[in-house]
Amino acid sequence: MDFSSKLLEQAVDEMSQLPGIGKRTALRLVLHLLKQPEEQTLRLSDALTKLRKDIKLCRNCFNISDTELCEICANPSRSAEIVCVVEDIRDVMAIENTGQYRGHYHVLGGKISPMDGIGPSQLTIKPLIEKVAEGKIEEIIFALSSTLEGDTTNFYIFKQLEGTNVKTSTIARGISVGDELEYADEVTLGRSITNRIPFENSMKG
Amino acid sequence: MDFSSKLLEQAVDEMSQLPGIGKRTALRLVLHLLKQPEEQTLRLSDALTKLRKDIKLCRNCFNISDTELCEICANPSRSAEIVCVVEDIRDVMAIENTGQYRGHYHVLGGKISPMDGIGPSQLTIKPLIEKVAEGKIEEIIFALSSTLEGDTTNFYIFKQLEGTNVKTSTIARGISVGDELEYADEVTLGRSITNRIPFENSMKG
Ligand SMILES: [Zn+2]
Ligand SMILES: [Zn+2]
Repeated sequence: MDFSSKLLEQAVDEMSQLPGIGKRTALRLVLHLLKQPEEQTLRLSDALTKLRKDIKLCRNCFNISDTELCEICANPSRSAEIVCVVEDIRDVMAIENTGQYRGHYHVLGGKISPMDGIGPSQLTIKPLIEKVAEGKIEEIIFALSSTLEGDTTNFYIFKQLEGTNVKTSTIARGISVGDELEYADEVTLGRSITNRIPFENSMKG
Repeated sequence: MDFSSKLLEQAVDEMSQLPGIGKRTALRLVLHLLKQPEEQTLRLSDALTKLRKDIKLCRNCFNISDTELCEICANPSRSAEIVCVVEDIRDVMAIENTGQYRGHYHVLGGKISPMDGIGPSQLTIKPLIEKVAEGKIEEIIFALSSTLEGDTTNFYIFKQLEGTNVKTSTIARGISVGDELEYADEVTLGRSITNRIPFENSMKG
């Protein structure tokens, strides 16, 4: 693309760094912003900058949070003894949305995926094992998507927990195999948490 | 959507103001930025802010420009007597890309569309008529998409030019009727400029 404006070119270049946004789409989005009041662009820029600069990961569960300890971990009415292991904040949001779960979470930050060069050390698996070693966790619920990477990650953590007394379960799959958690409807997802099964059982099928 | 972070919520809200970007997509884009180095977000925010604050419309042709007079209008080797009327900068970029055109442009900023509440006064039609009245333009080439709105706009301008000596033409339609100009391939578009026809002839079919 040959731009008559360096300013426009730079904005389109940066916008097209986003996943799934090609140059043409980026140009359409940027031209849209130019037609809107200046405040809209400033609000967007400001929100992105503030988020990137000030966002924290909860020091207990590694969920995205505005504070050192996230709202869920800081809530005394939630059970710290039950920990639901998820991939990212979208899964936390999906499960919270069901209103069925009153435990804590542990956000891994991804799944083990040799294809993408993601190994256990790039995820928050070690802090999870350490929390278990402290003896404060009674049950771990695996709630990763049931894909090859999700299953690999579940199994890796399960192996690391051998020799501890922690109970492990996985959410019941009312959700079809291969489906992403975040796209599941609330009822199905809520039920699959309530009907969770011991992790060992999930490996039989 | 129920966010655990106000910062995240604000970023997603602003991102989802963009056309075709729903809340879910906005969340995906914002989470992607969080996984990238901070500089990427700062570069994006900065590029958008600078663009919105510093961008100009060329005082001659109303194309998006970093300077008072755009590169095309400022180029002495281009013919100011031939003016190609287009909807927006994407059409300028598409035609420039063919390398077939050495005249000037006039960017209308849209098409007459009563459905969308866009009338002639919201477009840069008046300055175009004034330029013609000054007697410096020999030919006007209509290069709007051949949609109902494009044809309406062409015809409205054509009527306004009655009584002047300016020659009017439209780009030859190797491009299928109803197609957007910016999606045409370079060869077809280049040829349609070279083979432009008098505007009166285009109304016969
Ligand atoms: Zn937390
Ligand atoms: Zn210009």
